[in-house]
Amino acid sequence: MTRARLLLSCADAAGIIARVTTYLAGRGANVIDADQHSSVDRRFFMRLVLEHDADPAALAAGFAAEVAEPLAMSYRFAAAGEPKSVALLCSREDHCLLDLLWRIRRGELEARCEAVVSTYPDHATVVEGFEVPYHHVPVSDGNAAAEARALELLRGEVDLIVLARYMQILSADFLDRVGCPLINIHHGFLPAFAGADPYQRAYDRGVKLIGATAHYVTEELDAGPIIEQDVIAISHHHEPDDLATLGRDIERVVLARAVKAHLEDRVLLDGQRTIVFRD
Amino acid sequence: MTRARLLLSCADAAGIIARVTTYLAGRGANVIDADQHSSVDRRFFMRLVLEHDADPAALAAGFAAEVAEPLAMSYRFAAAGEPKSVALLCSREDHCLLDLLWRIRRGELEARCEAVVSTYPDHATVVEGFEVPYHHVPVSDGNAAAEARALELLRGEVDLIVLARYMQILSADFLDRVGCPLINIHHGFLPAFAGADPYQRAYDRGVKLIGATAHYVTEELDAGPIIEQDVIAISHHHEPDDLATLGRDIERVVLARAVKAHLEDRVLLDGQRTIVFRD
Amino acid sequence: MTRARLLLSCADAAGIIARVTTYLAGRGANVIDADQHSSVDRRFFMRLVLEHDADPAALAAGFAAEVAEPLAMSYRFAAAGEPKSVALLCSREDHCLLDLLWRIRRGELEARCEAVVSTYPDHATVVEGFEVPYHHVPVSDGNAAAEARALELLRGEVDLIVLARYMQILSADFLDRVGCPLINIHHGFLPAFAGADPYQRAYDRGVKLIGATAHYVTEELDAGPIIEQDVIAISHHHEPDDLATLGRDIERVVLARAVKAHLEDRVLLDGQRTIVFRD
Amino acid sequence: MTRARLLLSCADAAGIIARVTTYLAGRGANVIDADQHSSVDRRFFMRLVLEHDADPAALAAGFAAEVAEPLAMSYRFAAAGEPKSVALLCSREDHCLLDLLWRIRRGELEARCEAVVSTYPDHATVVEGFEVPYHHVPVSDGNAAAEARALELLRGEVDLIVLARYMQILSADFLDRVGCPLINIHHGFLPAFAGADPYQRAYDRGVKLIGATAHYVTEELDAGPIIEQDVIAISHHHEPDDLATLGRDIERVVLARAVKAHLEDRVLLDGQRTIVFRD
Repeated sequence: MTRARLLLSCADAAGIIARVTTYLAGRGANVIDADQHSSVDRRFFMRLVLEHDADPAALAAGFAAEVAEPLAMSYRFAAAGEPKSVALLCSREDHCLLDLLWRIRRGELEARCEAVVSTYPDHATVVEGFEVPYHHVPVSDGNAAAEARALELLRGEVDLIVLARYMQILSADFLDRVGCPLINIHHGFLPAFAGADPYQRAYDRGVKLIGATAHYVTEELDAGPIIEQDVIAISHHHEPDDLATLGRDIERVVLARAVKAHLEDRVLLDGQRTIVFRD
Repeated sequence: MTRARLLLSCADAAGIIARVTTYLAGRGANVIDADQHSSVDRRFFMRLVLEHDADPAALAAGFAAEVAEPLAMSYRFAAAGEPKSVALLCSREDHCLLDLLWRIRRGELEARCEAVVSTYPDHATVVEGFEVPYHHVPVSDGNAAAEARALELLRGEVDLIVLARYMQILSADFLDRVGCPLINIHHGFLPAFAGADPYQRAYDRGVKLIGATAHYVTEELDAGPIIEQDVIAISHHHEPDDLATLGRDIERVVLARAVKAHLEDRVLLDGQRTIVFRD
Repeated sequence: MTRARLLLSCADAAGIIARVTTYLAGRGANVIDADQHSSVDRRFFMRLVLEHDADPAALAAGFAAEVAEPLAMSYRFAAAGEPKSVALLCSREDHCLLDLLWRIRRGELEARCEAVVSTYPDHATVVEGFEVPYHHVPVSDGNAAAEARALELLRGEVDLIVLARYMQILSADFLDRVGCPLINIHHGFLPAFAGADPYQRAYDRGVKLIGATAHYVTEELDAGPIIEQDVIAISHHHEPDDLATLGRDIERVVLARAVKAHLEDRVLLDGQRTIVFRD
Repeated sequence: MTRARLLLSCADAAGIIARVTTYLAGRGANVIDADQHSSVDRRFFMRLVLEHDADPAALAAGFAAEVAEPLAMSYRFAAAGEPKSVALLCSREDHCLLDLLWRIRRGELEARCEAVVSTYPDHATVVEGFEVPYHHVPVSDGNAAAEARALELLRGEVDLIVLARYMQILSADFLDRVGCPLINIHHGFLPAFAGADPYQRAYDRGVKLIGATAHYVTEELDAGPIIEQDVIAISHHHEPDDLATLGRDIERVVLARAVKAHLEDRVLLDGQRTIVFRD
């Protein structure tokens, strides 16, 4: 028996769940887990986990013909339990980088890390200790050169790129050509403090909680669909440097949760918003 | 079209979801929302929200014959959106009482409050302001007399009894005869500090968070299935009276969430544990 | 023995604490509680709670002459345990209003509620149940007329005005003339979603937490110094109306905590930021 | 100018703060930060941070003679900013270990890690990457032998021992002889689930939050004074292994916060309870 995930969305209507599950039962596929959501504007979203011993291509082709096309459905099948290949991009800060490498090594994340690309040389030894190739791609020769080098390294090679405090703005052209989704961690509670220096600005405004936000990267800075957020309480004792220190503890956890949800095919897009089917 | 909820549990097996949803689709019932869970010991639990224009009795009878009996399923249909009738039992503290009455009046809870039974006379005016009958049932003549009076008032009259800081231990005999589930709020983070004086004991132990726990009432004190819990941070500045004050803010919210989940038929029992299908 | 609070701020320097406490000890005043903070830009803030049997005016005059003037200190003495007089301004929503009235009645807040001023007539009966005068001041005749009426009722009469979901923007002229501080509850995590319809905008942006912020009112909308904030997790299941319902549970608690801190003289201003000395 | 911390406790009385700060001002010591607390049973606790250029021994001797002895005070001076020497004891799990090593390397903790003692050989390479000696001390030859070896390595060598998921019960004799305080992380919300297998027992009881507790080690298992606690929400989806995974994220943060507070001399004992003066 193999295990697969099926994600789908379509206009809401009567009987969709019955139609989907009846097709699957007819092919001997057992639904292990099902989550479903109908949005306020009548769009239907679903995630199923299946066990089956059918030929995957035949299962998918039959689904397309008998269910997805008649219902004008978007859908995809994904293998469950097979690690996706991932690249991590980072800069000087190492907390998100190390946390992700450690979770991958423990098997907490369904991922194989193919490469770390860093604007700094500093993390080479540590990353190589995890048996992951380390590429130092400085931005000193300009962003364009760095992006070109990153494209060479990553295009077509990975399923997901994680910006683990990368600190550079990627061009629309790069996003277009790299060919896989990107998840970023922003060290602020979006939409507050988008852009540079969120901890300093949080301090200046005098907020009583600071936050971190993991989101898909789009052309517009810090404006992509949010996957996960968390906050931590602060007080007048904390200066901007303290906020950065405290913030690291939520940044790494928020990013890890978002990456895990993505790797387990739990995230669907609903325009600008995400639907995250929880474990 | 009427809206109904279907809750079911059975031994886990292939094709249950397909079988359930196909039956429903065949009777013109549209599944609006479906949540499902397979437990680690292979038990299957599901909650569905349906829209249908079938005769409810016929829909249920057909479900019994065609689905539930062949699969040895426990199940129940419940009307959605119809308020359940509720009684609130309380003592001197009024925070949970007022919060529930206020949420019922606002329409946040699918409930009609039939009666407030209190061991103290103090809340009569306030409760009557909500147009709810107030019964002062003192325990000064003994628990047995108080229980007998409460049984007279409530047996067969309500769908749910909420112990909103009732502070009396109800006998097994009462639980047996009252004929509906009871939800209690305990002012401690169960299983820590079960029984009397949880705030004093939390203070003595020097914990750094205090909690509240809403649970179904069983014969064993504070040992019934937990529906909802929350905590709040405290410090060395807080004396036992401060803990009681801070605790009220989580007690009322934890209790309200548990009551809401119950009223919306979101809670299933899995032995000593609950499955709470979230909104 | 009477109990007093002393709040002070000045440029940071060596020996301030010794100088202040030595003066007080010399007058027989015992320091029960002391909190102090030096900000990053070298400003010193302190809050002391004293027990003394001195003449309050003499104690203050001596302090001015011997300590405050030589050190160019801002300071004020406040009686501890004496309720401040408060007015509550509200609109259609009653959750913050009722919660504050209830906390005042219980003695949780050091306040005497002098008046409720509401743009709606709806809450008259409930408020009168708390034995508080209710003034219906509609905005149908324009904001200017409503402000004039509110000034008549409140100017010089109260120590604090609480905007318990008042939903009107008060003019700079009103703030100038009313003669006491105002605390507002904003139903968003400031600085995100300042202004109108924060829950709808939070929904549209797809955030995963919603927040509430209590702050002092200044001329610029939702930009005053923040006293207290909190958040609650949401998911794709929650539509804007659900956010409003969930949000009420944090709005009332955040506002109550901020009002309590103000009434207990725990809040000092550091420019645009607040220092809140915690209990 | 050197920076020092002064911690003290004594019976509560009038004028203690004045007496302490006047002494310090007289010796040219500037109080940078002061926190103080009077407990419900009239015990006085204080933490001061000082800047001074006095001879430390003379400052302390004068304090003893002029302040501490007359007031029957317990007190200690500690150097601020000087790293304390620490040993980490661990077992198979590496999350707390790596997190502490990483925080020490970053300078987040005022510590120098002298040794890691592990019952497993597995972490040698990683620990050596942090340039810390790694001692594999198996318990296969019995606890007594392991304790004897640990005593050889650590007695008199370190200021603090951290049990970073050590999973062995240390004997009273060991605690007696090792000569420094020990901090343990328990993977449960004490006093609930003291002892073995807290995640399995939390699962069996059906709690809705799981917790972690950092505490000083005393002879009685999991009963020492609590320094820090935190919780994380769980649901029926989470099996005991999931609880262990989720729990790791709070264990490492709770332990790090407790160790940080201890290293910065923020923790005082009040019998079985701790006073933690917050940053």
